[in-house]
Amino acid sequence: MPRIGIFGATGYTGYELVKLLANHAEAEIVFATSQSSAGQRMSDLYPCPYDLKLVNPASVWAAEGKLAEPADVAFFCLAHGESMGAVKQARDAGVRVVDLSADFRLRDAAVYQRWYSHEHIAPELLGEAVYGLCEVYRPQIAQSSLVANPGCYPTSILLALYPLLQGRHLGSERIIADSKSGVSGAGRKPSQTTHFVEVNENLSPYNIGRVHRHLSEIEQELDTWAGTPLRVTFSPHLLPVSHGILSTIYVTLEPGWSVARLVELYTRAYAGESFVHVLPACRLASLAYVVRTNRCAVSFAVAGENDFITVSAIDNLIKGASGQAVPNMNLMFGLDETMGLPM
Amino acid sequence: MPRIGIFGATGYTGYELVKLLANHAEAEIVFATSQSSAGQRMSDLYPCPYDLKLVNPASVWAAEGKLAEPADVAFFCLAHGESMGAVKQARDAGVRVVDLSADFRLRDAAVYQRWYSHEHIAPELLGEAVYGLCEVYRPQIAQSSLVANPGCYPTSILLALYPLLQGRHLGSERIIADSKSGVSGAGRKPSQTTHFVEVNENLSPYNIGRVHRHLSEIEQELDTWAGTPLRVTFSPHLLPVSHGILSTIYVTLEPGWSVARLVELYTRAYAGESFVHVLPACRLASLAYVVRTNRCAVSFAVAGENDFITVSAIDNLIKGASGQAVPNMNLMFGLDETMGLPM
Amino acid sequence: MPRIGIFGATGYTGYELVKLLANHAEAEIVFATSQSSAGQRMSDLYPCPYDLKLVNPASVWAAEGKLAEPADVAFFCLAHGESMGAVKQARDAGVRVVDLSADFRLRDAAVYQRWYSHEHIAPELLGEAVYGLCEVYRPQIAQSSLVANPGCYPTSILLALYPLLQGRHLGSERIIADSKSGVSGAGRKPSQTTHFVEVNENLSPYNIGRVHRHLSEIEQELDTWAGTPLRVTFSPHLLPVSHGILSTIYVTLEPGWSVARLVELYTRAYAGESFVHVLPACRLASLAYVVRTNRCAVSFAVAGENDFITVSAIDNLIKGASGQAVPNMNLMFGLDETMGLPM
Amino acid sequence: MPRIGIFGATGYTGYELVKLLANHAEAEIVFATSQSSAGQRMSDLYPCPYDLKLVNPASVWAAEGKLAEPADVAFFCLAHGESMGAVKQARDAGVRVVDLSADFRLRDAAVYQRWYSHEHIAPELLGEAVYGLCEVYRPQIAQSSLVANPGCYPTSILLALYPLLQGRHLGSERIIADSKSGVSGAGRKPSQTTHFVEVNENLSPYNIGRVHRHLSEIEQELDTWAGTPLRVTFSPHLLPVSHGILSTIYVTLEPGWSVARLVELYTRAYAGESFVHVLPACRLASLAYVVRTNRCAVSFAVAGENDFITVSAIDNLIKGASGQAVPNMNLMFGLDETMGLPM
Repeated sequence: MPRIGIFGATGYTGYELVKLLANHAEAEIVFATSQSSAGQRMSDLYPCPYDLKLVNPASVWAAEGKLAEPADVAFFCLAHGESMGAVKQARDAGVRVVDLSADFRLRDAAVYQRWYSHEHIAPELLGEAVYGLCEVYRPQIAQSSLVANPGCYPTSILLALYPLLQGRHLGSERIIADSKSGVSGAGRKPSQTTHFVEVNENLSPYNIGRVHRHLSEIEQELDTWAGTPLRVTFSPHLLPVSHGILSTIYVTLEPGWSVARLVELYTRAYAGESFVHVLPACRLASLAYVVRTNRCAVSFAVAGENDFITVSAIDNLIKGASGQAVPNMNLMFGLDETMGLPM
Repeated sequence: MPRIGIFGATGYTGYELVKLLANHAEAEIVFATSQSSAGQRMSDLYPCPYDLKLVNPASVWAAEGKLAEPADVAFFCLAHGESMGAVKQARDAGVRVVDLSADFRLRDAAVYQRWYSHEHIAPELLGEAVYGLCEVYRPQIAQSSLVANPGCYPTSILLALYPLLQGRHLGSERIIADSKSGVSGAGRKPSQTTHFVEVNENLSPYNIGRVHRHLSEIEQELDTWAGTPLRVTFSPHLLPVSHGILSTIYVTLEPGWSVARLVELYTRAYAGESFVHVLPACRLASLAYVVRTNRCAVSFAVAGENDFITVSAIDNLIKGASGQAVPNMNLMFGLDETMGLPM
Repeated sequence: MPRIGIFGATGYTGYELVKLLANHAEAEIVFATSQSSAGQRMSDLYPCPYDLKLVNPASVWAAEGKLAEPADVAFFCLAHGESMGAVKQARDAGVRVVDLSADFRLRDAAVYQRWYSHEHIAPELLGEAVYGLCEVYRPQIAQSSLVANPGCYPTSILLALYPLLQGRHLGSERIIADSKSGVSGAGRKPSQTTHFVEVNENLSPYNIGRVHRHLSEIEQELDTWAGTPLRVTFSPHLLPVSHGILSTIYVTLEPGWSVARLVELYTRAYAGESFVHVLPACRLASLAYVVRTNRCAVSFAVAGENDFITVSAIDNLIKGASGQAVPNMNLMFGLDETMGLPM
Repeated sequence: MPRIGIFGATGYTGYELVKLLANHAEAEIVFATSQSSAGQRMSDLYPCPYDLKLVNPASVWAAEGKLAEPADVAFFCLAHGESMGAVKQARDAGVRVVDLSADFRLRDAAVYQRWYSHEHIAPELLGEAVYGLCEVYRPQIAQSSLVANPGCYPTSILLALYPLLQGRHLGSERIIADSKSGVSGAGRKPSQTTHFVEVNENLSPYNIGRVHRHLSEIEQELDTWAGTPLRVTFSPHLLPVSHGILSTIYVTLEPGWSVARLVELYTRAYAGESFVHVLPACRLASLAYVVRTNRCAVSFAVAGENDFITVSAIDNLIKGASGQAVPNMNLMFGLDETMGLPM
């Protein structure tokens, strides 16, 4: 039973992780940190019965860089930029890591710096970090000590395109991903943008085109799989829902494709996957299919002669964050990959 | 055409006022202040086309306590405690005032201090202030230079009880008002409480019993009308909607009442009122009847032998705040009371 | 491992049951019926991956009143009035029953007929039926072959009052329950009342006072526990949320009570209960505490000298229906009561 | 003051029209029909105070095809296919018509038949019908006796593209419109699709690609303006909001464009338009900018070297239906185009 530490337990991803682990048969949380709420309990912050005590992050470290309370694995639910230092410290102490920030997702430190506007302070760890998309990198994750858990938007887009790109079926390098996300993706910290009255009955595009930081990891993976640089547009929109991302993705394929053939290709590619659901030709993915689960639903429609649409949906906090992190941990410790994740 | 100044234009009540006045045939906004956003325009803060310029509150005052830009009336959409000083300054300059804060609603400075925890710095103005519930105090409002616009919860509860109390029809001094409000009532400033994810799919009671400050003005008016102290319980709940208050009010009456008789009493009491809608016996008020309008819907149900329920609904920002403020201004300037308010 | 049949699997309670049982370690669904959708699969009706086949209810019965596919227990998620005939048939076949309709909740057939407007066709079973509120009737449920699963509103109100009434602490026979429910409580069948546009941004009281049918089972239990007839008002409201019921309940107690004493009383009364959460004095129940769980949160506030408020919250489809049905089944089969229910 | 008849007053567009006309200084509703609710009043169907009587459509016709109650103009808020016969009857009686159905939007009866699956029974009127997009066809509307009010999705897409296409600035014939609509667009009739629980917290694509009927009128106008057939993909999504459409439109332009140049082009093209708001370069359209108003907000972003995004937003029931119909009537009767429409 892995002993677990959580750094940054009080944000939405941390809270989701605590909820998932509460129903995980082989997990024991040995500490959970919070900078701002140390000394309180989860039940002081969230309407919930979890009386998990929150401790100051400094207090978990004992002399000589050892953990005061030994843990086998640590989840980092910290902000981008804040995570890398703490991860380095954990790795130095021999603790295995699942990092939910963006700090170890990009293989190239220069790309990281361009998109995230600060230098990478642990570039030496980038080489050992594995991008935690288990449907693509399962063997590497199982061997890894540092898993960079994918971003929420990237998860929805990458799983929707992987079989097409890996098979080199694109007929044009242009890909447009029109994505819509629930508000929990913006984090728990109050802001004008997340005020109920601003979001409710509204729909707002933001950072559309080539501005949103998640484009960096989307392009890294897509370009690698396609073996060539693509021309990607990524348009996020803020939806008046709490959970969920739906991505409507426009691609042009080589001649000869149909929705039926796409369903067949994906069904084969994702055979055996517990969490990817390829929908039949007559159905489209929707948030209702996935919210509060670790599912990714993928579906297809025709949009012109060789133009097709892939629609995918995930719960941004579960499959797009903490729910994806748990199978990654399960893989790292030889546990059943689906443990702790309701079907 | 009254020249209008708005103090504190960038909160939700200020914005609502600007929207209403934009469609008012006889109103001209000569200045609008904002402490935090001076120099910007409304369209910088809200998704709207109003390019009304926001100025620093200090800048509207010229030498000798005169207004730099003369105005006939000023609306104060400031926080409780902040308003009274500014109102005093405006009154000293001879400007008529509609104050949307609580600072002049309570006739007794000691009661104000008990509920709002700070001393009243302009108690000499309390005597001339008129409680701006136009259905009850219309003649006084028309003569007044200082109208204290009622609170949102009080408006919904007072209009639902006025005919019963004025007629001395209560059979018990116990009144329970179970009220439910949309989130805009909590103001525009972001907080954990108003974060979309905390409110959405939720319903939270808060300050229930005898805690919420609005109880002070509710009791002041009810006790006066009843001619005796009542035993009032007031329970606010936060609803996952942007606009609206619905109050479900439990009363015990003298023997002999029925819903039909209540409808008759209220219809007579509110005859000629443009904004109070007494519903027929078979219907109950709902938010949908009132949101985005200046209506107050009032309705009735039987709850036992002499036990009855009055249900009232208003839009908290319109009839409960800015929409109520505009007829008050209309009355003060001899204009048609309904001017600027869609039917 | 109990073999399970579900009658009426395609309504919201049926679907919730299927979801819960999919994660129950000791349950096997052997058939699921649907009058309107026989021949289809759950995944044809709901955005979900469950390919459970729906069969015609007639087809589950073989010769001589035996089940074609043997089952140990049947859940009935049928409409009031439709359920009793089918339940009788199941009991005659020796199948144990958890009935989610109202048909076996009232011990008196005449009371049933008055509230539900049709005769009871299996009154002989009323004597053996146990009201399935496990916190109160656990031993009887464990022995029972016919459990009448409580209604959603009654669950929220009864658990909020049980310790007070059992202890005979009321100071007045008057109880007012102001309840607010999400839309799933109205069932899956489309109607004007459940149209998104009618519900969204709205709040509507309905059947308030002494009209709603759930009052019958609320009174049956409360009067029994209090040992005297009470004067109950019950006011349901339709909330713009999918899941959840919050009941704000007004009571007058004997002299000498405080919130702290109430917390103590309830904490003792519900000691050992997995699903009832008594909140500390400073906190109030909210939907967020309970939705998507089998929890009932109970909390307290003071409303006057001897006037108190009890606020309780449940998920209407889980603790108020299918989530309560599963522990009832667990109890009937000697399984761990919490099996299949995430904490 | 035009005397107005409304055919089909009880759907959402009919109700919106009644609300708008209630605040129109120069309009008088002389009759309003309803097949299903004849004999009732609007206040029986909607939570509103409008006691407009609903009459049977047959009853408005007197002998010899004359109107029993003379009207100058009739609005038709009937379903596609039902409208054309009634419109013909009205035109034969000399009544001017604003038709909110699709029956007279397509200039070619064969195209109509292909998309709407029934024959056109009044093809002789197609020649005189004017497509009621006042920003493009204002002079023709002013002269017309039969205005075909544009569909909601087409309004949002066409206004977002008109200046670009009219100026022949496209660099590729491919246009992708990813549109998101509130639920009122699906009409008032209850269905599984519009059930609150199915829509709430959900987002569903439907009829995406080249399936939705509105594509026919989108293509008719775009191809005409571009002077060449385009390759249009149109993907509607159902949003969990009551009102509003946001269209995110992907185009490739000739070399040399920038967001600033687009803003300039559109600002010039829509100079003098009351209802089209071209946003500055740093802002994007959102539903909040437009709901409950007759505004269309248009905005721009860059998506690649020559790839751009146009985002437009309208209220589907106002600018996309009844709010657009009122200026059309105003134009037909020489009234101020903005009369009855709050700014």
